[in-house]
Amino acid sequence: MIDTPSSVSVPLKRGRDYAIRYTSLRDLPGILHDVGLRTGKCVVVTDENVGAQYRSPVRTALSSAGWIPHVITVPPGEKSKSADQLQVLYDDILEWGIDRDTPVIALGGGVVGDLAGYAAATLLRGVPVVQCPTSLIAHVDSALGGKTGINHATGKNLIGAFHQPNVVVADLDTLGTLPQREWTSGMAEVIKHAVIADADLFSFIEEHLVDVMTGRRRDLIHKMIPRAAKVKAEIVAEDEKESGRRAILNFGHTFAHAIESVAGYGTFTHGEAVAIGMRAALFLSAQRNTQAIPRENIDYVLRAIPQQHDPSELDWQDVRRAMQSDKKNKGDVVRFVLLDRLGQAYVTGDISDAALRQAWDFATRP
Amino acid sequence: MIDTPSSVSVPLKRGRDYAIRYTSLRDLPGILHDVGLRTGKCVVVTDENVGAQYRSPVRTALSSAGWIPHVITVPPGEKSKSADQLQVLYDDILEWGIDRDTPVIALGGGVVGDLAGYAAATLLRGVPVVQCPTSLIAHVDSALGGKTGINHATGKNLIGAFHQPNVVVADLDTLGTLPQREWTSGMAEVIKHAVIADADLFSFIEEHLVDVMTGRRRDLIHKMIPRAAKVKAEIVAEDEKESGRRAILNFGHTFAHAIESVAGYGTFTHGEAVAIGMRAALFLSAQRNTQAIPRENIDYVLRAIPQQHDPSELDWQDVRRAMQSDKKNKGDVVRFVLLDRLGQAYVTGDISDAALRQAWDFATRP
Repeated sequence: MIDTPSSVSVPLKRGRDYAIRYTSLRDLPGILHDVGLRTGKCVVVTDENVGAQYRSPVRTALSSAGWIPHVITVPPGEKSKSADQLQVLYDDILEWGIDRDTPVIALGGGVVGDLAGYAAATLLRGVPVVQCPTSLIAHVDSALGGKTGINHATGKNLIGAFHQPNVVVADLDTLGTLPQREWTSGMAEVIKHAVIADADLFSFIEEHLVDVMTGRRRDLIHKMIPRAAKVKAEIVAEDEKESGRRAILNFGHTFAHAIESVAGYGTFTHGEAVAIGMRAALFLSAQRNTQAIPRENIDYVLRAIPQQHDPSELDWQDVRRAMQSDKKNKGDVVRFVLLDRLGQAYVTGDISDAALRQAWDFATRP
Repeated sequence: MIDTPSSVSVPLKRGRDYAIRYTSLRDLPGILHDVGLRTGKCVVVTDENVGAQYRSPVRTALSSAGWIPHVITVPPGEKSKSADQLQVLYDDILEWGIDRDTPVIALGGGVVGDLAGYAAATLLRGVPVVQCPTSLIAHVDSALGGKTGINHATGKNLIGAFHQPNVVVADLDTLGTLPQREWTSGMAEVIKHAVIADADLFSFIEEHLVDVMTGRRRDLIHKMIPRAAKVKAEIVAEDEKESGRRAILNFGHTFAHAIESVAGYGTFTHGEAVAIGMRAALFLSAQRNTQAIPRENIDYVLRAIPQQHDPSELDWQDVRRAMQSDKKNKGDVVRFVLLDRLGQAYVTGDISDAALRQAWDFATRP
């Protein structure tokens, strides 16, 4: 029922379609050529962890094919999504010298993809960017869809731009060395995509729950990831700038952003917070639509994501207030994504405080 | 032959058309309503000079109509197009609190428009921006077309984004207090638009040269500015992201950027440098196409822009080298815009060093 594709297409308007190519990073030069980028200078942005493993083979592959790569390595972790680190990139890249056809290659997880993607969006008012995701969350979410940006003292991702990649080069073997906690956190977004838009993918995950949670079965992973990426690609294609349907990708995220903020960023991983947020959204969905939602099945899968911290220790009033200041709100209405049924979601702003409180209690129960 | 319109339309793809509305700044709230912006918070960015005159009436007009304006005043001059000043805006705006529907109103000349427009492009990945130009160059050029950005130590406008305004509110009475040197510098861009795309506008300028150069005849100005703005609007509509025809707007600019850079920014105004650059481009055009180009007529108009500094004192080799590093180059080829005839321009990269040197000598002759 679920196959192993070598490529997933992201169809955008005005002929700006791009592909997610499932292949080795060694094939990067050939793919750059396929998408019409002419050899010359290119910038590779990576972090210390990913760079230690892949900087050297990527540089060699590029140089052998006639590229002149300039590799920039940033510190790992969310703190690199800062105005200061962005300025370091600007200075380095502009002093080295680029023109409007010089591609920026983002080699790493979500942080590198967002930071390098944003630099590419804004250098010379936009240069090509090639996303090479190396974390699960980047493979199925952050490297796709063109959202780029950095954090601000007042909140995450508050400064950014939409800038679609020319191509995504997805080497699934880069996931082999991912720490377990990063893997299971990434699984939260995979499950999210299944729950909001792909009931068959949900069945697949449910059936292979233990194996996909450990990430050990290469054959399963190579089926699951392109399928999860396809959900994101299709939703983004319909709504590139997040005015409509794309909002359903925020399933679980209203609670999640609040949890991350209240607990202090880095306490819960994004995926752990999203898993809790999805349990809350699931509760609210089932409350409105008892017959249509297989609440116990979905909750069972969501609870398979291990939590390192106990969310019930967070103060509900703090979480409630933090939800109020989410940047996705329109005016004063807090927006939530709920399920109509498994595989179909919608956005609503109409939820009582009492219901939110009940959902929180449900979601923070072990 | 040339009329006085109340509005010029900028037709963009995907229904994002916007209008340049020629009216008083007092009508700003009504226009915000016309373009579908709902009253609530709004940010007004201005500079100390413009702010001293218009901050108070604009704030009053907005407040009276139910808006909650937050006015931010930046220092006047090009040095405000900096990463530091941008960060001041981000901090101020994000701490005050906005959502994705909060408009940023840029009230000022090119610097305010570029800086506030870029902040709007990147805050929450893009909020609405309303351009209210108050300088001639902003009225006919920088407030139109969606180019926004800041400078970098290595060059001007190297960090930026395309972000189209929701509407441009053009109050021509704001030009009444513009210093004479700013006026004549702005005239360079007006003449440029005439020369590259509107032969009738050129005749109009030629006929009224003394009056339009002093800016004193309100009736003429109110005909000339919308007409010059229309040229920009039409070219931008065809080529929003500067991949093709939009490049002709750079007529005179390859030399101009080099002159500004070599002389030190601020020595020549942008318009003065563009006037010299246009003389050089005119020479090259006439050299290729002697019959079609009324070289003496055009040169007479271009020489009507007063120069405060003698460009012949600049070292030609320095200018030549600076042209080589212009960000609009593709690879190593320096691109120039030349005229086919009055009112029609094209881009070429094929010009000999000897011809460039001759053009420079012609352009720097009084």
